[in-house]
Amino acid sequence: MHILEIIAKKRDGAALSAAEITFFVDGYTRGAVPDYQAAALLMAIYLQGMDGQETAALTAAMAGSGQQLDLSDLPQALDKHSTGGVGDKTSLIVVPILVAAGVPVCKMSGRGLGHTGGTLDKLEAIAGLSVALSPEQMLAQVHSVGACLAGQTETLAPADKKLYALRDATATVACLPLIVSSILSKKLAGGAPSFLFDVKVGSGALMKTQVEALALAEALVAGSTANGRRAVALVTDMSQPLGRTIGNALEVKEALELLVSPESAEPRLLELCLRLAAEGISLAQGSSVEAGREKAESSLKSGAARDKFQAIIAAQGGNLALGLPEAPTVVPVTTSVAGTIQAMETQALGELVVRLGGGRATKDAQIDPAVGLELHVAVGQRVEAGQTLAFVHARNPEAAEQAAATARAAISMTPAPQEAPPLIHQIVKLRV
Amino acid sequence: MHILEIIAKKRDGAALSAAEITFFVDGYTRGAVPDYQAAALLMAIYLQGMDGQETAALTAAMAGSGQQLDLSDLPQALDKHSTGGVGDKTSLIVVPILVAAGVPVCKMSGRGLGHTGGTLDKLEAIAGLSVALSPEQMLAQVHSVGACLAGQTETLAPADKKLYALRDATATVACLPLIVSSILSKKLAGGAPSFLFDVKVGSGALMKTQVEALALAEALVAGSTANGRRAVALVTDMSQPLGRTIGNALEVKEALELLVSPESAEPRLLELCLRLAAEGISLAQGSSVEAGREKAESSLKSGAARDKFQAIIAAQGGNLALGLPEAPTVVPVTTSVAGTIQAMETQALGELVVRLGGGRATKDAQIDPAVGLELHVAVGQRVEAGQTLAFVHARNPEAAEQAAATARAAISMTPAPQEAPPLIHQIVKLRV
Repeated sequence: MHILEIIAKKRDGAALSAAEITFFVDGYTRGAVPDYQAAALLMAIYLQGMDGQETAALTAAMAGSGQQLDLSDLPQALDKHSTGGVGDKTSLIVVPILVAAGVPVCKMSGRGLGHTGGTLDKLEAIAGLSVALSPEQMLAQVHSVGACLAGQTETLAPADKKLYALRDATATVACLPLIVSSILSKKLAGGAPSFLFDVKVGSGALMKTQVEALALAEALVAGSTANGRRAVALVTDMSQPLGRTIGNALEVKEALELLVSPESAEPRLLELCLRLAAEGISLAQGSSVEAGREKAESSLKSGAARDKFQAIIAAQGGNLALGLPEAPTVVPVTTSVAGTIQAMETQALGELVVRLGGGRATKDAQIDPAVGLELHVAVGQRVEAGQTLAFVHARNPEAAEQAAATARAAISMTPAPQEAPPLIHQIVKLRV
Repeated sequence: MHILEIIAKKRDGAALSAAEITFFVDGYTRGAVPDYQAAALLMAIYLQGMDGQETAALTAAMAGSGQQLDLSDLPQALDKHSTGGVGDKTSLIVVPILVAAGVPVCKMSGRGLGHTGGTLDKLEAIAGLSVALSPEQMLAQVHSVGACLAGQTETLAPADKKLYALRDATATVACLPLIVSSILSKKLAGGAPSFLFDVKVGSGALMKTQVEALALAEALVAGSTANGRRAVALVTDMSQPLGRTIGNALEVKEALELLVSPESAEPRLLELCLRLAAEGISLAQGSSVEAGREKAESSLKSGAARDKFQAIIAAQGGNLALGLPEAPTVVPVTTSVAGTIQAMETQALGELVVRLGGGRATKDAQIDPAVGLELHVAVGQRVEAGQTLAFVHARNPEAAEQAAATARAAISMTPAPQEAPPLIHQIVKLRV
């Protein structure tokens, strides 16, 4: 087998065999296949595509490029993945609900990327908390507490890290089989038998259209099934920020408040978390979605989910008693006219928080956990002249004023009534 | 301007501007654009193509990546290029004819590539001859003798050398705009105002079909014209070896004999050289092709072309008086049946000579100038049982016998009559 023949085959539009794909992934991971040949193949894949079998084989080869966790003694274990959004703190809520319902969760999360936030950055707003767990520490914590919320380790799916960096430098990121294999290879290596995917769609998501999002959801579920895992994918709304907050400490606070007092939570966030948890419990335990929903609701109501959240945080060294960081300047965003909230430029709101310091403009930038945006309105909501739409939490008044103006411009209003967008667009399931 | 945007633009099928193409070529030549980004762009070009304007801009940028010769004091100067074939010694014959007819030729040639021979390898069969001329030596020799037959210098079109090596390693060689820009950038940098292209087609050529060959011929002429040069391209037959010999010393000998006694030459080789010379003279001097033909014939008949050949060889240190190397073993290839020569697997005949040592199996292999194949038949010729079809010139009897069997298998016969293939398929002209 020769890499040039593999490149030429994909260049000419043919399907690659599993052996050819493995030859490429192994060779690239070891450094036997140089970057320039991998780049040529990635562009050929981008332009000629890959079918489901090829995508599954690519995923398996990437998962097999490093260590793979063994969760075989936890047949109900589940892993959750969101494709990323603005204000998306669902993992902080859904994971404790799942654990309280008897579903162990061994989860590796990501950092903020572009305008979207990352679970790791949010968790690190908590004093003392560490996300740098070794695979052994992760497994031990899942067995003792029921879940871990860890950072990606270097030893799992190293091919993905190398390929992702190359895709980023060769304009080959936005390619379905490459996106799917990147997400799924890490999940496969993580060892859980069940995967719960939250594919975001809308102005704040990476996928802007339902067609794209549904294609990704279907490919994730098909790729999971082809590799012997159970999976469910929900295509969910990201046409406005999720919940009331954007920003690391603000989102942890909102998640904790929801777990403590679900009756006061922002209703769309609460409903999404319950839907995700219900599907996850149903998938992991082989029960009906209705049974999953009941378990999710009761573990929230009883305070069991709240206790699990505190136990997971404590296990990773976090100390909630020290309080969360707060920004020194808080300024309101008001409207001078009455009307209905028509739409939000959600990506602009996410980028605003990055500029406030809540995300990374460059790879190695420090994050300010305290800053962010606190929304008091949602799409479809009626507001009066003079009403406060949001609060900006900032490091200083100049940054706050600029952010407030940007936030105001990103929220559009209409005199006509406006329906709230649907929360969940599609649910894709395809069990083994 | 950013290289990622340029890659993405071509990836999405859009045409690149001249500024974008120059940004890429300059950056790649300097090392500012890494191999892997160039590889992704080459694959995108391979799959999305380039229009005539883009190809011309790529050619100009590559030509501009290094030194460019100044032949402005020689307005009738011409450069000749063959896309490569088996037994193609036309440059050794056409260049002296052109010079004798008053057309200066500043020509950089190549080495053998795969099954096709190279003018430099052929010239080096002559004792003492050097093809390693500096640009200054090349210009001086064109002014003193009328022509030079030199190797590619490192200083002319360095982008081409770097890009060609990358194409070779990324399965992006067989792509028309990349082939055109590679050939033409070196010609542009060579400084001649007129170009004569011989595009070979058939079983011994890189282009196997007339459609491909005509597309290349048209693209070469269009690219030349777009860059302010005059050009003519002939699509000529390579369905059998050209002339009677394949192998470096054998081909020099055949060329020299043709220049000395054109009446005894293999008729198709003689006719092709006269047609090429006629077109070249016509193009360079702005005369009719008929006038060019007359000049070509008379410079051959008068011995002026022969004298020019000897002068060029002498100027480069070559000593024909020492004789050409001869192989110690010569064995015949015979036929046991009568019939007509139907076809030749010309590439197989070229590869046979490479295996005898007449070409390079690996990049740095030494060439044996003496070995080769001497053909005594052509397609369409009637032969009797027991007749000798060819002679193998080899280093030892074992190699000779093996080559003889291969040669016999590569020549197919038919009981029915068979017409000789046309010598010239198309002539493409498009003057400025």
